[in-house]
Amino acid sequence: MAVYTEVSDEALIAFLTEYELGELVAFRGIAEGVENSNFSLRTTKGDFILTLYEKRVKVEELPWFLGLMDHLARAGLSCPLPVAARDGQALRQLAGKACAITTFLPGVWPRRVRVEHCAPLGEALAQLHLAGQGYAPTRHNALGPQSWAPLLDRSLAGADGVQPGLGAELQQSLPGIVAAWPHDLPIGHIHADLFPDNVFFLGDAVSGVIDFFFAATDLLAYDVAICLNAWCFETDGSFNITKGRALLAGYQRLRPMSDAELAALPVLCQGAALRFALTRLYDWVNTPQGALVTRKDPMDYVRRLRFHLHATGAADYGG
Amino acid sequence: MAVYTEVSDEALIAFLTEYELGELVAFRGIAEGVENSNFSLRTTKGDFILTLYEKRVKVEELPWFLGLMDHLARAGLSCPLPVAARDGQALRQLAGKACAITTFLPGVWPRRVRVEHCAPLGEALAQLHLAGQGYAPTRHNALGPQSWAPLLDRSLAGADGVQPGLGAELQQSLPGIVAAWPHDLPIGHIHADLFPDNVFFLGDAVSGVIDFFFAATDLLAYDVAICLNAWCFETDGSFNITKGRALLAGYQRLRPMSDAELAALPVLCQGAALRFALTRLYDWVNTPQGALVTRKDPMDYVRRLRFHLHATGAADYGG
Repeated sequence: MAVYTEVSDEALIAFLTEYELGELVAFRGIAEGVENSNFSLRTTKGDFILTLYEKRVKVEELPWFLGLMDHLARAGLSCPLPVAARDGQALRQLAGKACAITTFLPGVWPRRVRVEHCAPLGEALAQLHLAGQGYAPTRHNALGPQSWAPLLDRSLAGADGVQPGLGAELQQSLPGIVAAWPHDLPIGHIHADLFPDNVFFLGDAVSGVIDFFFAATDLLAYDVAICLNAWCFETDGSFNITKGRALLAGYQRLRPMSDAELAALPVLCQGAALRFALTRLYDWVNTPQGALVTRKDPMDYVRRLRFHLHATGAADYGG
Repeated sequence: MAVYTEVSDEALIAFLTEYELGELVAFRGIAEGVENSNFSLRTTKGDFILTLYEKRVKVEELPWFLGLMDHLARAGLSCPLPVAARDGQALRQLAGKACAITTFLPGVWPRRVRVEHCAPLGEALAQLHLAGQGYAPTRHNALGPQSWAPLLDRSLAGADGVQPGLGAELQQSLPGIVAAWPHDLPIGHIHADLFPDNVFFLGDAVSGVIDFFFAATDLLAYDVAICLNAWCFETDGSFNITKGRALLAGYQRLRPMSDAELAALPVLCQGAALRFALTRLYDWVNTPQGALVTRKDPMDYVRRLRFHLHATGAADYGG
């Protein structure tokens, strides 16, 4: 469910007069996405996406996100390009929400990840990291290691309701991961949420990378670890090392990782699994029954965390 | 929320080889619609809608619905035209569900109905009724008057939880409406669910009529009564007779109503309001808490029913 705010046709038509986008032809809500309201918008000038930013996105951070997307798109990454209105501004207001129009990207996100997706995904991630180098403003990663203990604290009361012993298990793992967290690896702008539903493919080639609203300035190798978590586990919870090898090889074709980055993969993967386990647990515990949001099972990432706690080096990931 | 069934990209690509539709370019879930799963589908041949029919639609009735849409589109109504695969069949299987691809229609459905929408809506309804005349197969209206008492029976236990006294109020109104129901008015194929979200406009002209899965063979004037309910009440519950007048005038420009049809408008409007009050009440009472379906408030239609019970003739509707 990804339309939280309705836009009246009259308001939309008035809004479009602020742009050089011609006349409205079609307008439909998009089912994908859980954070914001997204609409496919067709005008006589082409196809676009209209996004209304809902409460999880801080309005004061939108210029950073839109600036990053603009920078990445102009640097050649296939990502949504914010469309400026006549006054030069892409960030606007509609139906009481901050909003922006971006370009439409072709492609289909993979409902089931195949090995063939993983090398192009790795390449696209490296391309994103390289393209981001010239974007000067930085953004602190609000979901980095310093956030994990507070997140766990606010979820502990309900953790054992998800699975008995879960609270204690996470409390036991967390300090070691945070203590071992590397601080001297290469930094850059990371996507930080590059799950399969944020990557479009045409055939086996990446045609688009979307949804930059968790992006931040952080360890580049942490983004690789997030992708290893999101792309390389099978539905039965097992790690597919063939996928991991393809992802790492694809990434390193464009941006070779240092020995220190490769050596840090186990702890980075632990942290990535913990981060998604914790936000899912927090949502699980704190989402009211009956809310129109599909809660994701935190246990998928707890199981990944257990795997990573047994990893000893990059070889465990195919690196 | 209108994607209940996920379609894997591999399954979709294999499915498209059954058609002469070229290569897959884009595929997104559509947020609108509550009965079926809808996707916007772009191929190298153009834009289409893929619908997977979910459990509320009976598979054995799909040939009738698709046949009606095909007939109406070929008779000149702007409605989705089912696209046949190479074997000539439009009704197919995908992801374990019956499905069909139809043509894409431009336009935007009116989030807020204005008077200017009502005459074109009336004309489109008359066009639908006239275009349907050559379609020989009939379909019994499963939500006609004979269904209302059983629907009420199965909702009574929870009715007073919606509003105290609601059960008794509906029990009191129902028999009189069913007893007064006309049986000698002109019959044809009716849409039976022509709400604003099923009608696309470009400017103030109708560009598309969609969602024929409540269509049936029934009193044509009953379809007019459904539209008076769905299009001519303001959000405060008041009837806007200017909208009613425009709707009826627009309809009668193409298909003049008989005196008997006009005289029956009050009871037909009562029945239409009761039908939507009852199905909404049934869903309200029988939808589990936490289900991913937005329940619609039955009281909107109970209030309309109260208005119609005081109407004495077509003049009350602007006729």
